[in-house]
Amino acid sequence: MASASAKAIEQPTVEIATGAYRVVSALIKVQTEGREELQNLTSLIRDFVRSSGVRAGSVTVSSLHTTSGIFVNEWQDALLHDVKAYFATAINKDLYYRHNDPAWSDCDRHNADSHLRSLTLGTSLVLQVADGELVLGEWQSVIMAEFDGPRERSIRIQTMGIGEK
Amino acid sequence: MASASAKAIEQPTVEIATGAYRVVSALIKVQTEGREELQNLTSLIRDFVRSSGVRAGSVTVSSLHTTSGIFVNEWQDALLHDVKAYFATAINKDLYYRHNDPAWSDCDRHNADSHLRSLTLGTSLVLQVADGELVLGEWQSVIMAEFDGPRERSIRIQTMGIGEK
Amino acid sequence: MASASAKAIEQPTVEIATGAYRVVSALIKVQTEGREELQNLTSLIRDFVRSSGVRAGSVTVSSLHTTSGIFVNEWQDALLHDVKAYFATAINKDLYYRHNDPAWSDCDRHNADSHLRSLTLGTSLVLQVADGELVLGEWQSVIMAEFDGPRERSIRIQTMGIGEK
Repeated sequence: MASASAKAIEQPTVEIATGAYRVVSALIKVQTEGREELQNLTSLIRDFVRSSGVRAGSVTVSSLHTTSGIFVNEWQDALLHDVKAYFATAINKDLYYRHNDPAWSDCDRHNADSHLRSLTLGTSLVLQVADGELVLGEWQSVIMAEFDGPRERSIRIQTMGIGEK
Repeated sequence: MASASAKAIEQPTVEIATGAYRVVSALIKVQTEGREELQNLTSLIRDFVRSSGVRAGSVTVSSLHTTSGIFVNEWQDALLHDVKAYFATAINKDLYYRHNDPAWSDCDRHNADSHLRSLTLGTSLVLQVADGELVLGEWQSVIMAEFDGPRERSIRIQTMGIGEK
Repeated sequence: MASASAKAIEQPTVEIATGAYRVVSALIKVQTEGREELQNLTSLIRDFVRSSGVRAGSVTVSSLHTTSGIFVNEWQDALLHDVKAYFATAINKDLYYRHNDPAWSDCDRHNADSHLRSLTLGTSLVLQVADGELVLGEWQSVIMAEFDGPRERSIRIQTMGIGEK
């Protein structure tokens, strides 16, 4: 496995946008059905960005919880199965955790694994907006991981940048 | 574990803010006391956002180090214990690492585990600001993980967005 | 390992910047040579920020792929070796994954491990810009992890903030 400083293959085209700044936000509530579950947020975010009037800028997607996460990857059934299997193994639900022990904790949800999965995966991410569209690679989806459902979950989406002329 | 495209439970209310843009930054130094330690940054960030005059926008919290991390989760003693136990197991301090071997490395801190914990957890995150307040869910705290203390650590906080009218 | 609310060692100096907002973006293509590889993006990002005319704000670095990642850490040969060894162990390439099984998946790249490494590491991050310069700590580099090369990879860099006066 080589390690080197990156070189750009060709001179990149630079886009510069200036204009009036705006911030557009929405709180989106989604319902999960299982303890562990993956939901594809891409369409919700893409539609929100289109309706926001932001032409160039960024969008922040934040789960307002401590037992769920947000990530970017491919939305393919076989792979989603592997993602769930990975978390089940990497952070084992059935180990001893103080958070699950009444001697140490007043939480009776037995969800220490859910917290650990959430904090290692991350609860918030920032994507780019260009030409009024969410920027994602061909195979990228924005995915919410539920680690302690079923629950109603609040996802706050905020886009900021230069508005339509 | 089901997997599906997310649907919003109800039509979200969209907030649009426009106005003069500002960027407000501060370098905050904190002292850690142990090799591994968790510190709750929430109050520092919340106070900074309130004093910044940013009404709608985002705040970026960045640790300027390679052996510490920043994450969001619940601030509960039993859970914090589990977080520390998780990192101790997931990235074992006592394995062989080239970074700790004088034959390969000029670093004598024996902190390869600290670097690996830092890079898998992440050193920077972005949160939202609305109505002049840091947006966090009910159980969310912003937490700094020290993985190679005791040290004085520099955390740079930057909020950007639309200022007070 | 202590756990406490963070206190600032001294009163931080707060910098406030106001002025015209701009967003500057570039799509940078880099070539990787191995299946697993680390490339240092710091110089590319630093040069881009300098040429962008953004004086105070942020820069978002996004890999547009699902089998690569972006992280911040020290660029030291011995440590980079440990990073690769860590991922090889933490997410074993040779386990059974549905994504690699023709009975479940039409992907023939046998790269389930690459996807899992990508999503746990993260594909996008936000850094700060101050005085027209990328803000990084003394030992921090921005590093792209290739987990399924060799490939041509697209990294989109976007800086936003207050432009030069």
